[in-house]
Amino acid sequence: MDLYEAIARRRDTRAEFTGEPIDPDVLGRILEAANRAPSVGMSQPWVFVTVRQRATLESFRSHVLEERAVFAAGLEGERDSTFSRVKVEGICESGLGIVVGYDPTTAGEQVLGRHAIADAGLYSVCLAIQNLWLAATAEGIGVGWVSFYREAVLSSLVGFPPHIRPVAWLCVGTVASLPEVPDLERFGWRGRSPLSAALHDERYAG
Amino acid sequence: MDLYEAIARRRDTRAEFTGEPIDPDVLGRILEAANRAPSVGMSQPWVFVTVRQRATLESFRSHVLEERAVFAAGLEGERDSTFSRVKVEGICESGLGIVVGYDPTTAGEQVLGRHAIADAGLYSVCLAIQNLWLAATAEGIGVGWVSFYREAVLSSLVGFPPHIRPVAWLCVGTVASLPEVPDLERFGWRGRSPLSAALHDERYAG
Repeated sequence: MDLYEAIARRRDTRAEFTGEPIDPDVLGRILEAANRAPSVGMSQPWVFVTVRQRATLESFRSHVLEERAVFAAGLEGERDSTFSRVKVEGICESGLGIVVGYDPTTAGEQVLGRHAIADAGLYSVCLAIQNLWLAATAEGIGVGWVSFYREAVLSSLVGFPPHIRPVAWLCVGTVASLPEVPDLERFGWRGRSPLSAALHDERYAG
Repeated sequence: MDLYEAIARRRDTRAEFTGEPIDPDVLGRILEAANRAPSVGMSQPWVFVTVRQRATLESFRSHVLEERAVFAAGLEGERDSTFSRVKVEGICESGLGIVVGYDPTTAGEQVLGRHAIADAGLYSVCLAIQNLWLAATAEGIGVGWVSFYREAVLSSLVGFPPHIRPVAWLCVGTVASLPEVPDLERFGWRGRSPLSAALHDERYAG
């Protein structure tokens, strides 16, 4: 698939998973794409844990639904009723979770480009996630990033030691199709804003 | 360009800039690709400042060279001599810096998906950077991410208010060609490791 097409067709997928297992070769290409991301000082500070066991998926889903309720409790009026229509996860339906972690120790103490910006390693992990997401889109596979969770709970679930920080739970799976319009736009939560809203010339203009 | 080709050909560019200005339509497509990235709660929390003024480029470059010296001062033996061959920036040669910032206020207080993970907005900004980088690669444009700087210095340079965090300075410019092999591998700083080093099944295996 053409790059610009992949960028345009990529969706945060929640309701469209069919549950059909992903071809292992396809999954391999998607993960290889992630591993080819840029990383500060070539540190490749990412960790991927593929989770398929039903008990683990269900346990994570229970936690996510609790956190969904925490967020909902802070909403009122139109925001509350709009949010009630939004599906925030496809953890069990997708059949596969890819837990992405940040391991700052992969390249020793002296990571080129990280002495002044400690979070540069964390940024690299996110670049890998976007490569994964675009590759999945090109393969016709859906990806949904779930962030309704507490990091300590996810760490415990997949056995991350204290130095590894969980960055994402990605629901990854076969889909009937990818929606044309993002869910949050479709359900009236929030629409997209144009590039002009974010672009400044020479200096930030407020 | 095919997505997988863009992923494979993307390089962190430092020495290959020609200084020829980028076609405005090309730059527009690259920035639009960034603006189409996924973002938590559709918050699009990114800010882009395009910097071309010579005085600003030179001022930032001076700061980066100071920080390069700070990092070098902590190296010894082979690491020190290997690093001495590594070029860490192409700030003036590229002719264009794109400063990317994270603005947590773009979508109000209640950002869907950010109540439990405060950094989810920061992650979104990184996804936008990877879209930008791949689009530039597809357009034959070089991108070099510079992270040898102190955030406060960069904020001051482009006028970010305290609530906007600088995430990257990207040198963006026309290149003679993109290197086949990453600089850090070519200069013997560090090679790439295979996916298998990062991949775990069901639980993190140490």
